[in-house]
Amino acid sequence: MKMESKKVAIIGASGYSGEELVRLLLHHPHAELTAVTSRQYAGKTLGQVFPKFAHLPRAQSLRFSQPQAADIARQADVAFLALPHGVAAEYAVPLLDAGCAIIDLSADFRVKNPAVYKEFYAHDHPAPGLLPKAVYGLPEIYRAEIARASLVASPGCYPTSILLPLIPLLKSRLIQPAGIIADSLSGVSGAGRKAELDYLFCECNESVRPYGIPKHRHLSEIEQELSLAAGSPLTVQFPPHLIPVNRGILTTLYLTPTEPVSAGATGERIAACYAAAYAGEPFVRLLEGDALPDTKNVVGTNVIEIAWRLDPRTGRLIVLSAEDNLIKGASGQAVQSLNILCGWPETAGLV
Amino acid sequence: MKMESKKVAIIGASGYSGEELVRLLLHHPHAELTAVTSRQYAGKTLGQVFPKFAHLPRAQSLRFSQPQAADIARQADVAFLALPHGVAAEYAVPLLDAGCAIIDLSADFRVKNPAVYKEFYAHDHPAPGLLPKAVYGLPEIYRAEIARASLVASPGCYPTSILLPLIPLLKSRLIQPAGIIADSLSGVSGAGRKAELDYLFCECNESVRPYGIPKHRHLSEIEQELSLAAGSPLTVQFPPHLIPVNRGILTTLYLTPTEPVSAGATGERIAACYAAAYAGEPFVRLLEGDALPDTKNVVGTNVIEIAWRLDPRTGRLIVLSAEDNLIKGASGQAVQSLNILCGWPETAGLV
Amino acid sequence: MKMESKKVAIIGASGYSGEELVRLLLHHPHAELTAVTSRQYAGKTLGQVFPKFAHLPRAQSLRFSQPQAADIARQADVAFLALPHGVAAEYAVPLLDAGCAIIDLSADFRVKNPAVYKEFYAHDHPAPGLLPKAVYGLPEIYRAEIARASLVASPGCYPTSILLPLIPLLKSRLIQPAGIIADSLSGVSGAGRKAELDYLFCECNESVRPYGIPKHRHLSEIEQELSLAAGSPLTVQFPPHLIPVNRGILTTLYLTPTEPVSAGATGERIAACYAAAYAGEPFVRLLEGDALPDTKNVVGTNVIEIAWRLDPRTGRLIVLSAEDNLIKGASGQAVQSLNILCGWPETAGLV
Amino acid sequence: MKMESKKVAIIGASGYSGEELVRLLLHHPHAELTAVTSRQYAGKTLGQVFPKFAHLPRAQSLRFSQPQAADIARQADVAFLALPHGVAAEYAVPLLDAGCAIIDLSADFRVKNPAVYKEFYAHDHPAPGLLPKAVYGLPEIYRAEIARASLVASPGCYPTSILLPLIPLLKSRLIQPAGIIADSLSGVSGAGRKAELDYLFCECNESVRPYGIPKHRHLSEIEQELSLAAGSPLTVQFPPHLIPVNRGILTTLYLTPTEPVSAGATGERIAACYAAAYAGEPFVRLLEGDALPDTKNVVGTNVIEIAWRLDPRTGRLIVLSAEDNLIKGASGQAVQSLNILCGWPETAGLV
Repeated sequence: MKMESKKVAIIGASGYSGEELVRLLLHHPHAELTAVTSRQYAGKTLGQVFPKFAHLPRAQSLRFSQPQAADIARQADVAFLALPHGVAAEYAVPLLDAGCAIIDLSADFRVKNPAVYKEFYAHDHPAPGLLPKAVYGLPEIYRAEIARASLVASPGCYPTSILLPLIPLLKSRLIQPAGIIADSLSGVSGAGRKAELDYLFCECNESVRPYGIPKHRHLSEIEQELSLAAGSPLTVQFPPHLIPVNRGILTTLYLTPTEPVSAGATGERIAACYAAAYAGEPFVRLLEGDALPDTKNVVGTNVIEIAWRLDPRTGRLIVLSAEDNLIKGASGQAVQSLNILCGWPETAGLV
Repeated sequence: MKMESKKVAIIGASGYSGEELVRLLLHHPHAELTAVTSRQYAGKTLGQVFPKFAHLPRAQSLRFSQPQAADIARQADVAFLALPHGVAAEYAVPLLDAGCAIIDLSADFRVKNPAVYKEFYAHDHPAPGLLPKAVYGLPEIYRAEIARASLVASPGCYPTSILLPLIPLLKSRLIQPAGIIADSLSGVSGAGRKAELDYLFCECNESVRPYGIPKHRHLSEIEQELSLAAGSPLTVQFPPHLIPVNRGILTTLYLTPTEPVSAGATGERIAACYAAAYAGEPFVRLLEGDALPDTKNVVGTNVIEIAWRLDPRTGRLIVLSAEDNLIKGASGQAVQSLNILCGWPETAGLV
Repeated sequence: MKMESKKVAIIGASGYSGEELVRLLLHHPHAELTAVTSRQYAGKTLGQVFPKFAHLPRAQSLRFSQPQAADIARQADVAFLALPHGVAAEYAVPLLDAGCAIIDLSADFRVKNPAVYKEFYAHDHPAPGLLPKAVYGLPEIYRAEIARASLVASPGCYPTSILLPLIPLLKSRLIQPAGIIADSLSGVSGAGRKAELDYLFCECNESVRPYGIPKHRHLSEIEQELSLAAGSPLTVQFPPHLIPVNRGILTTLYLTPTEPVSAGATGERIAACYAAAYAGEPFVRLLEGDALPDTKNVVGTNVIEIAWRLDPRTGRLIVLSAEDNLIKGASGQAVQSLNILCGWPETAGLV
Repeated sequence: MKMESKKVAIIGASGYSGEELVRLLLHHPHAELTAVTSRQYAGKTLGQVFPKFAHLPRAQSLRFSQPQAADIARQADVAFLALPHGVAAEYAVPLLDAGCAIIDLSADFRVKNPAVYKEFYAHDHPAPGLLPKAVYGLPEIYRAEIARASLVASPGCYPTSILLPLIPLLKSRLIQPAGIIADSLSGVSGAGRKAELDYLFCECNESVRPYGIPKHRHLSEIEQELSLAAGSPLTVQFPPHLIPVNRGILTTLYLTPTEPVSAGATGERIAACYAAAYAGEPFVRLLEGDALPDTKNVVGTNVIEIAWRLDPRTGRLIVLSAEDNLIKGASGQAVQSLNILCGWPETAGLV
C-alpha cells in the first residue's frame, strides 16, 4: 500500500530541537518539509543555517521564511511549533483555524489547568480555550487520542523520561503514589541554543551541577500525568542536574512498592507489568539481566531504555531510564505523533 | 615557630590517588617524601612515571622501589598505603610494628566490624586485630582521634561526600535516620587507572550510567558512620552514577526533617546546625544565597561545598555536596590527616 | 525498478568500525545481514553485544558465530572483513575462492607493493598473490574499478581525509607534489576498542597529544595514492594527533601552488578543479563563503567537508577536511563500495 | 633573607585569565592582592564572583571596585591589566605616571611597530609613545630586560607556545627562517568568557575546527619576535584550531634544518641548542626518550613541554610544545614577570 504523503512545516526551527526536527523530516519517507520559519534566519536556506544538511538538495532549496500563520497554513497539512512557551499558543490559534494540525513542542498545551500553567510559567495562559482539545503527545500512553487529535502537546524531555517508567506501575497500583523522587541528569542541549555564560563550554565541561531546585517547571506536567495514572493527586520530588554531554537524560526513580519487597512476588509483578505495557513498543527497550541504562546507547535514536532493581535492604524499588532528550524527549517523539496522526507506520523516519 | 619536618612514604603510588598524593607531598612545606613503591615501576624515577612532575628536582632523583615494609620503616615516619583493599592490611601490620604511623587510603580499616567487612568485600578481614586502633580519618568529625592515632583509615570518596553533610544533621536530630537516599555522581578517575573496556574514553564520553545498584561497597562505612551519628542502626539507599568528567563527585541527599517544613523554624535550625559544625572549617564551604554546588568549583582543591533546600511541596530537605574525589575524597583528606597527626597547620600543603 | 537484495556478512564485528557497520547494514534497504562473527562473542546475539541495537528484531535473532570461512561463504554474497591487518588476508583467500566478494576494512590489500607493506607493517605480506586484483576502495576516485571488483581494500580513516582533498589538485598539477604536510587530528575511536591505559577516559579527556611521529603506517597508502595522482613518487609529512572526541578527523593540508598565489587565477583554478571533481558527489561537501570544516557537522554521516584558503603572505594553499573516522573513514565508505559493487544507488543506507 | 612584599592590583579581573591571576596572587607568598576592578562586578567580593575562592579570607573581604587609575595607583606597586586590547593602553598611561609598574596581559604593548599593530588590530595604536619602554614579557628570553622594566607586555598564549621552541633554533641558525609553519590547537578558554553561540558547550563539545585562517592577530607578535631571533624579517604560517578541552595549547612546528638531516650531527646540535637554552629553566621541560608533549601534563602549571623529531624521509624537523594557555600562556607567565621585576625567586607562587 502506498502511503499518502503530507506537507509539514516547522515554525521556529533555529534551536537544537528545531534542527533535529529538520533532520528527521528531511529523511522522512512520507512527510514533505515545505516550510521552515525563523525571524532570525528568514531568507537563508536550510543548508546555510545548518551546515550539516548543506549537501542535501532539499536543504539547498528550502529557505527560512518569516513566521506568518496564513502562509504556513497554505503550505502545510501539519505544523510543528518549536517556539518558546507563550509564543507557541499565538500561532496555534490561527493555524488550527486554517485547518492545519498542530504538533507543539512547547509547554503551552501540556498542562490542562490554566491555573497550574500560571503557577509554573508565571503568566496567564495565552489560549485557554484550546486546552480541552489538546492531547498530551506521549504515544505509548495516548496513541488512540493522538490518532484523532488536531492539537498535540508533545511532552517535555524530563517528563518523558519520568512518565514512561512510572505510569504503568502507578496504573497497576504496584507503587505508592506518595513520596516519588525523580533524580534526573540532562545533557546541555536541554538548555537550548542560547548565548548565556552558564552554558559556555568552559562552564559546563568538567562540571556537574544541580539547578531548578526544588520547583522546576516540568513538575506541572509530570504531576498532572502521574496523578491521572494514580487516580488521585500526588506530588513529586524532581531535582534536575546538568552534566557535560551534548545529549541524553538519565533518570533515577526512588519508589516504594505497595507490597513489601520481601513478599517475593513483587519482582514478578513489576516484570509482568512492564512486559504488558511495553513488550510490543518499538521505542521502549526493557533491559534484561545485568544491563542498566546508559545514555550512549540511546543517543541518536527515539528509544527509551528502562531497567529496575528491588533493594531488600531498604525496601525500595529503583527504576532507571535513559533517552535522547532531543529525540525521544522532543523531536523524535513529535515525529512519532506525526506518524500516528497521519496513519503512517509509527516507526517511519525514526530508525 | 619552626615546624618539625617528617619523612613520609607512599606504598603503591601508581594509580590516580597515588599520583595526586605524590603531587601534594612534593609541594608540602613540612613533609619530605623519602620513598615511593610500586612493583610495576620499581627502578624508575617519579618523573619517568609521572611526566607532569619531571621538572621537579625531587622527582628526578626519587626512584620507585619494591614495596618492602622493613625498608620503608627505616625511611619514613609515616607511610601512606595507596593499595587495593586486602593488600593494604598486609603492609600495615609490619609497618606499625616497626614504628611507622599509617594513613591507609584503602577500605581495610574503615569498617569496625569484620563481619560487615566480609559481607561487603567478600573475603575475611586480613588483620582484624588492628581494627580497634584504627581511626576513621574524617578530620572534621574525628580531629582529636586522628591527632593521637597511629593508624588512620582515610574515608572513601563517596562516603566523604555523604557523611560530611549528614553527620551534623543526624547528631542534632534534625532529620529522620530512616529513609535516607544519597544519589551520587562521580567522575571516571574514581574507577582507578585500570585498563578495562568500561573506562575507555569512547565508553565514558557522551555517556551517563548508573552502576553498583543497589549494594555498593561504600555502604558499609557510610552506614557505620551515620548509625554512630544517629545513635542507632540505619540503612541508606546509595546508587552511584558514572559521569564523563575526570574528577568530582556531586551528591544529592533526600531527607525528611524531624519537624515539618511548614513549622517554620526548620530552616533556621539547619542553618545554625551547619554553621556550628563547619563555620570554622577551612575545607568546608557552606554555600549562601542562590548558590548550589558545582564540581568545577572544588576540583583541584581539598574543599567540599554544601548547600541545602527545603521543599514545602514535598516536605523534604534536599542537601547537596560537591568535592574532588581524588583530593577531599582521597589524597587531600589523607594529607589533612597527616597534618593533624604531625601537629602541623591543618591546611599545610593543601591550598 | 526493484533492487536485487544481497546477503552480507561481517567477519570480526566487535570493534567500533564493526559496530558501525552492523548499524548501517541493519538499516540498509537492500543488504541483508546474514552472519556476524567474533571469536570473543560467538553464541551471543547482536543485541546482547551491542545494547543499542537490542530493540531491533534482527539484532535479537542474529547470533555471532565463530569465523569459519566455509560457513560464511554459504551465507553471504559479500563479506566485510573488520579484522586486524595480517588476519584479514587469511580470510580473504578462502572467501574469494568460494565466490564471495570481499570488502576489507584492514590495511592488508591497500598497499600494492608487498615490500612497502613489509616496511610499514613489519611482517611479510600474507597473500601477495591477491594484491593485483584488489581495488583501493575510494569511490570518488575508483568508482568504475569498484563496480567490477571482487576484492575492495577500503581506505584507512586518515588516508581518506587526506586523499580526497589532494588527488584532484595533484592530477590538475595545481600544487607541487613535493613538501606536502598533512596535519591530522583524530577522535579516540580511531584507536579501536582496546583495553589499554593510553585510551582510558582520564588519559584522553582534557588532553591533546601527537603520536606516531614521524612515520605512521597510513603513510604507505597515502604516498602510494598521491604518487599515482602526481605521476611520480612523493613523500608526505603526516603527524597525527589524538583529541578528546569520540569521532571525527580534521586534517589541515599545507601546500604550495604551482603558480604563485599573486598570479591571481590560482584561486579560480582551485575552485574549478574541486567543482569538476566533486560537484556531483553525494558525500563530498565543498564549503563556500566563510565556512570552514567542523567535525560536528559530519559526525554520524558519510560526508567529507572540504574548504581551502590561499595565503598571499606565505604563498601557500591551505586545504582543510573533516570526516567521521568510523563512517566516511571506515564503515560508511565500505558500504558506499558495497552499493557500487552491487549496482544499488550509491547513497543507499547512507542518509 | 626576608623578601620584601609588594602590593598588586588587577584591572579587569572578570575573565578566565583574570580569575587565574586572582588564584595565583591569592596564594603568592610575597605579593599582596590589594585591589581588583571590574565595571560589571564592582561592589561584590572576590568570593561572590568566583565561588571557588569563597572560603579564603582574603576573597571574603576584598571587593571589586570601579577601575579608577588614581585609586589603583594609591593601592598598588604593580598593576596587572587584564583588559581588551585598546582599553589596556588607556589605563597604562596614568598608572605609569603615578608610579605603578604595569604588567599588561593584552596585546597593546607587544608589537613595537604601531603600523603593524594597526594592520592586525584595525585601529590606531592608543599610546604609541609608551611602546619604546615596553618589554616583551617572555622571561626565558628577556629576563634581564623584565627585571628593569616598568611596563611589561606579557605575550599571547599562542605566541608563547611558538616562540619558546623556535627562538633558540633561529638564534643558533639551526633552521631556515623561511617557510615556518606553526599548527596550533587551543582549548576553549582561549576564546575568553564571552556569551557567544560559537563557544556554547554543544557547539564545542565533540567538535574540532580551524578558525582565523590565514591571518590571526597573534602573527604580529610571533613574526616580530622570530624576525628578531633570525636577524631578518620572516613570515609564518599559523592556523589555529579549537579543540574541546578547557585549557591547553599544543603546537606542532614544521621546520627545515639548515643542514641536511642526513648530515648526522643535526640531531646533536639541536639537543645541545635546547640544553644550552633551557636546561636550567624552571618552567621549560625538555622531553626525553619516547616522550611527546601532552597538554594534560602541563595544565594547571606554568610549565611548557618541548620535544622534537627529525624526519629523514622528508628532511624536516618537527618540534612540538604543550602549555596551559591560561598559565604559561597568560597569567602564570605574568606572575613570573612579576617575580623577576620584584626580585623574588622566579618560581614564587608558581609551583
